[in-house]
Amino acid sequence: MGKYQIAVLSGDYIGPEIMKAGLKVLKIVSENKNFNYDIKKLPFGGDAIDKIGEPLPQETLDVCKNSDAILLAAIGGPKWDHAPVRPETGLLTIRKSLGLFANVRPTNISSVMAAYSPIKINDPIDFVIVRELTSGIYFGHPRSQTDYEAIDTMRYNADEIRRVAKIAFEMAMERKKHVTLVDKANVLATSKLWRQIVGKMAKDYPEIKYDTSYVDAAAMKIIHDPSQFDVILTENLFGDILSDEAAQITGSLGTIPSMSKGQMGPALYEPIHGSAPDIAGLGITDPISMIKSVAMMLENSFNRSDLAQEIYLAIDRSINEEITTPDLGGTSKTEQVTAEIVRAIKESR
Amino acid sequence: MGKYQIAVLSGDYIGPEIMKAGLKVLKIVSENKNFNYDIKKLPFGGDAIDKIGEPLPQETLDVCKNSDAILLAAIGGPKWDHAPVRPETGLLTIRKSLGLFANVRPTNISSVMAAYSPIKINDPIDFVIVRELTSGIYFGHPRSQTDYEAIDTMRYNADEIRRVAKIAFEMAMERKKHVTLVDKANVLATSKLWRQIVGKMAKDYPEIKYDTSYVDAAAMKIIHDPSQFDVILTENLFGDILSDEAAQITGSLGTIPSMSKGQMGPALYEPIHGSAPDIAGLGITDPISMIKSVAMMLENSFNRSDLAQEIYLAIDRSINEEITTPDLGGTSKTEQVTAEIVRAIKESR
Ligand SMILES: CC(C)[C@H](C(=O)O)[C@@H](O)C(=O)O
Ligand SMILES: CC(C)[C@H](C(=O)O)[C@@H](O)C(=O)O
Repeated sequence: MGKYQIAVLSGDYIGPEIMKAGLKVLKIVSENKNFNYDIKKLPFGGDAIDKIGEPLPQETLDVCKNSDAILLAAIGGPKWDHAPVRPETGLLTIRKSLGLFANVRPTNISSVMAAYSPIKINDPIDFVIVRELTSGIYFGHPRSQTDYEAIDTMRYNADEIRRVAKIAFEMAMERKKHVTLVDKANVLATSKLWRQIVGKMAKDYPEIKYDTSYVDAAAMKIIHDPSQFDVILTENLFGDILSDEAAQITGSLGTIPSMSKGQMGPALYEPIHGSAPDIAGLGITDPISMIKSVAMMLENSFNRSDLAQEIYLAIDRSINEEITTPDLGGTSKTEQVTAEIVRAIKESR
Repeated sequence: MGKYQIAVLSGDYIGPEIMKAGLKVLKIVSENKNFNYDIKKLPFGGDAIDKIGEPLPQETLDVCKNSDAILLAAIGGPKWDHAPVRPETGLLTIRKSLGLFANVRPTNISSVMAAYSPIKINDPIDFVIVRELTSGIYFGHPRSQTDYEAIDTMRYNADEIRRVAKIAFEMAMERKKHVTLVDKANVLATSKLWRQIVGKMAKDYPEIKYDTSYVDAAAMKIIHDPSQFDVILTENLFGDILSDEAAQITGSLGTIPSMSKGQMGPALYEPIHGSAPDIAGLGITDPISMIKSVAMMLENSFNRSDLAQEIYLAIDRSINEEITTPDLGGTSKTEQVTAEIVRAIKESR
């Protein structure tokens, strides 16, 4: 059995702090488990702007392309607000260059976590958002700006819609067999195309309950009745907004991982939150989002749900024992939470 | 003193039910108060499609243009899903034709209402969203759709941004002196233009605290810390999504009015919710959103905050006495709630 190559992009502000935690857990969980890997740390985001002058250096991209999976912590921050190229551009470029057209963000609130939610929760919540990630208004042309006028273009074609829709339907087959397409088909031409293509595909999945929702209505349902969802499928910009809203109802942004993937090639795993400049360096960042990103990678890129499960159980245990960072109401440090999760993994063996 | 002309568009499904309630309250509150008006009822939306073949007949538009204010209840519904022109098109056209470029939606949660909120509320919430309403991706060209590709265009110019921004700043001067521009300036060219124009205008209002937020972050803040907002200023599509999200955190969608206005000419007042086909005809629709729309009209188009205040107090009283429709946990009918509000107005005189 060869060694897997994992590209590691620690990024900016709290990025390196949580990456350290994620790699520690990866090391422990894979010990004596026939999972061998090498990591390669690469500059990315603001860090790469400072060192090399661009957010996504060629070498970083090349190594990512040749890896089996990519771990990313978080990038960006006020330091580069006036840089000629922003760190975020690196993120958009890596998504596009690696063809990571599907972004998958789980929202689930276990009974342990319900207390942290800002909403009053009655039923268990467990849905995922499948967001199109490499097209739409993020990438469409023409795009231009003068002092008087600016233009962005939201553009989709049938192939772009079909490939991400397929991921949503396949995912729903393994879950609660329900797909909700979110769009603005009462206004947008692109949304009408989404409805047409996805509606047709739904016929190939007769077991799946398929429905649609306008994006404004969906923004309401995520708050007042989130338990109705299983898989939400949506375009890039709507997915950006709704997935952050959905993350917020868990009340624990610091615990949510995500996966971005394409048809083939490496997938990228990262927390859904940003680089949190306000708490960088204080050692109090919640490492769980990064540690769960590692688990998601083990499960999805390496087919090792056994190892992922060990991580999830250890995390639940650390929360149950209230060894948590301030975002979850605790007083522990990043390193203490990480150590507790490591301990729980070791103990369970 | 002449008579004001008020155009009345009752629309579809629950539309006529709540409009009846609104007009009843308008009649009572203006009795012996030196406020004279005539109403003119006009077909609009699905109703107009059925009667005349188009959602916004020329006569409806003409009368609206020559009125002092417009009351609209709600339009649309599944009945016209496959109509050649949708009811919603009428809404977009009337906004554009009357130059109603600013949509103002209040979100406030009084202590009486906090119990109905799906979120856990600590601090009082009182903000408004000022949404640009006649440009952006709703109206931009090119717009096209084939079976393979579709395109929408988000387009803004400096004048469109300036005029709506001015409304937001003026409004903030009368409120808590805080404006938050919501955009996606880390990705969109149009957002960069908004930042440029609005940032410059902020300098003309030194008393106002001015800040910015990305739309995805704003979608989170509306849930986890809504009391930080005073006036949120944003473009058309973001405003659509965020204002519905904001409405939802009040837990009482059935109670929220809105105003759409331009530089001059009549303003339009309407509930923020839709035509609720599922409860149409049951007589249980909450009339408060429509009644508050009437109050908002009296205050803003006719400078009669005295009458508006009478209405608001009467509404608070009916809620306090738990004479409410099912959306607020009550068992009263639309007509009973309306009668109670009428009674409270009369009694207070
Ligand atoms: C940083 C930004 C460009 C990015 C996006 O909008 O896609 C982020 O919000 C995300 O969701 O990953
Ligand atoms: C019906 C629809 C076209 C409309 C909009 O998106 O503007 C509605 O959602 C609203 O907010 O008034």
